[in-house]
Amino acid sequence: MSEITIVEIARRCGVGVSTVSRAINNHSDINPETKKRIMEVIRETGYIPNNSARNLKRTDAKCIAVLVRGITNPFFAPMIEVVEKEVEERKYALVIRHVESNEDEVDVALELEKEKRLRGIIFMGGAAKHSADKIKQLNVPAVFATIGSDIADDLSRNEYSTVSVDDEKESFKVVEYLIGLGHKKIAILTEGSDTPSIVKLRFKGYLDALKKHGIKPDEKLIRYVDRRIYTFGNGYETTRNLIESGEKFTAIYCISDVLAVGALRALADAGIRVPDDVSVVGYDGQEIAEYCVPRLTTLRQPMVDMAEEAMKLLFSIIDKESGHKHIVFPGELIVGESTRKIK
Amino acid sequence: MSEITIVEIARRCGVGVSTVSRAINNHSDINPETKKRIMEVIRETGYIPNNSARNLKRTDAKCIAVLVRGITNPFFAPMIEVVEKEVEERKYALVIRHVESNEDEVDVALELEKEKRLRGIIFMGGAAKHSADKIKQLNVPAVFATIGSDIADDLSRNEYSTVSVDDEKESFKVVEYLIGLGHKKIAILTEGSDTPSIVKLRFKGYLDALKKHGIKPDEKLIRYVDRRIYTFGNGYETTRNLIESGEKFTAIYCISDVLAVGALRALADAGIRVPDDVSVVGYDGQEIAEYCVPRLTTLRQPMVDMAEEAMKLLFSIIDKESGHKHIVFPGELIVGESTRKIK
Repeated sequence: MSEITIVEIARRCGVGVSTVSRAINNHSDINPETKKRIMEVIRETGYIPNNSARNLKRTDAKCIAVLVRGITNPFFAPMIEVVEKEVEERKYALVIRHVESNEDEVDVALELEKEKRLRGIIFMGGAAKHSADKIKQLNVPAVFATIGSDIADDLSRNEYSTVSVDDEKESFKVVEYLIGLGHKKIAILTEGSDTPSIVKLRFKGYLDALKKHGIKPDEKLIRYVDRRIYTFGNGYETTRNLIESGEKFTAIYCISDVLAVGALRALADAGIRVPDDVSVVGYDGQEIAEYCVPRLTTLRQPMVDMAEEAMKLLFSIIDKESGHKHIVFPGELIVGESTRKIK
Repeated sequence: MSEITIVEIARRCGVGVSTVSRAINNHSDINPETKKRIMEVIRETGYIPNNSARNLKRTDAKCIAVLVRGITNPFFAPMIEVVEKEVEERKYALVIRHVESNEDEVDVALELEKEKRLRGIIFMGGAAKHSADKIKQLNVPAVFATIGSDIADDLSRNEYSTVSVDDEKESFKVVEYLIGLGHKKIAILTEGSDTPSIVKLRFKGYLDALKKHGIKPDEKLIRYVDRRIYTFGNGYETTRNLIESGEKFTAIYCISDVLAVGALRALADAGIRVPDDVSVVGYDGQEIAEYCVPRLTTLRQPMVDMAEEAMKLLFSIIDKESGHKHIVFPGELIVGESTRKIK
């Protein structure tokens, strides 16, 4: 098994060595079917391509770390895929580190710095506020993905990068869309914690949109889910409680698509038709929004573009071609089948 | 920030130090609300609990590694949560390592052994066949989760553990259930690769059930998805192709719930009613099966029990209280709203 070479892989696949190399190095000029077959043979034989082997075995391999808050959170999956591809293209090693609920991601990053030949860090999710002292201790550039606000008080924004949408503005847009459809009794499923977070910005967008259109926020329609905004169950239970409370509402704005899928199910179980009786809107533009029944109206964050930009920015800082930046992407309101004009 | 102590956390939360300690150590005798509040304060302050700090900082911390094939695969999320909890309770450090598509998980494990004070490995997913030589090189016990068949040819089953359902038998049960409802034209969405995998076992269960009931498998109803069986898009496209082919079918058996959700959406787009016109069944019993509309009939793998058993087994092998074992869990057919008797 250990004698498998790239020549042997090429022979088994009936292709040239250069084709195998193109497959391994993710070149675009290769037939996807051929590439798939080559990668399967590589896995079957246990062959380790040279660059992967080098990355694994050389303890001095240059390395990028991705710190993901909540590995069970589907939101970051498309971003992680992009990061893997970009890191591989640059011949860096990649460490994906899950941050546990009782850990601080910056502490984890500081530890990783000691152990690894780390060149840069991407933070995905996590707290919106950190200790300025700790951030300053980081010796490698850090890009915070999906968080656009100030990461720490008393810290210049020149000391870190962010790639995000403007959550407050985009959320305002979502609620204004519902108001434009004639909705006034708009319930919201949001997070209850007082910790600064991007969800807080979305909630502010909701309040501002109501205010602009002269609608008084109704405390009874503001529903707080458990901390975890990416569980179907929280969306389901919170919506069921809202329904059972007897409060009148014509629309529900959910602060994540995952919550919205739970809301759709709770409405279906209560015999409430979407969008005929109640409109439902999500936030994030995750894949599930496109596949649930009815298709969900949502605010799409351009996750792939954001991840690509985060990697480009990180590498340009590593290469000293750029300083830190704060890049804001526009969100896109995707109108699905879950919203309609009020009757 | 670095001066925060457990006493300060307790003061801020208005609880005793022992309560904070119970929260940090995941004791069960604590009010969940209180625990939540404490964990939030811990995150806000950046306080590092002693045991986490020790695990992070001591390079000799005993460590368990979880190697996950496909971090973007939602299937393993509930299992990872259990592993985290169990590892924390045992005061081990946890390394979650994502295995990339061109890596061999056993190679990755062999590398991790060199770097870390590794005591045991849990493999989640990945290839169903490995090199016996490589497995033998592992110096710490390995448990393969969700794969029950022989991991390597020419290797005694005493050299590794498995925790799984009997995929062939459970799949047989699913298809027999459909046949019992009167279905004969049962399409299947399965994986096309020739690599040994648990999906192959499920496919065999399908063929065996048809055979037992005298139904000749129809090549035109056997539909192969791209390698990745956990994408909505693959389920959607493959089902759309099936519909557009004009072949007659009354049921679709999808080899994963994620594929089934894509199938539901494709059927809805074609104006085909589920279950009135076509029945749909998934496999896995993932959370989405419970929340999609209609609720999905599926084969539930007891993922939480399996993960708990895998950890118990791994630690009992580490503690030399047990040798390797092969534990098979029964699956459970969950009847949802997506299947009905044929008219």
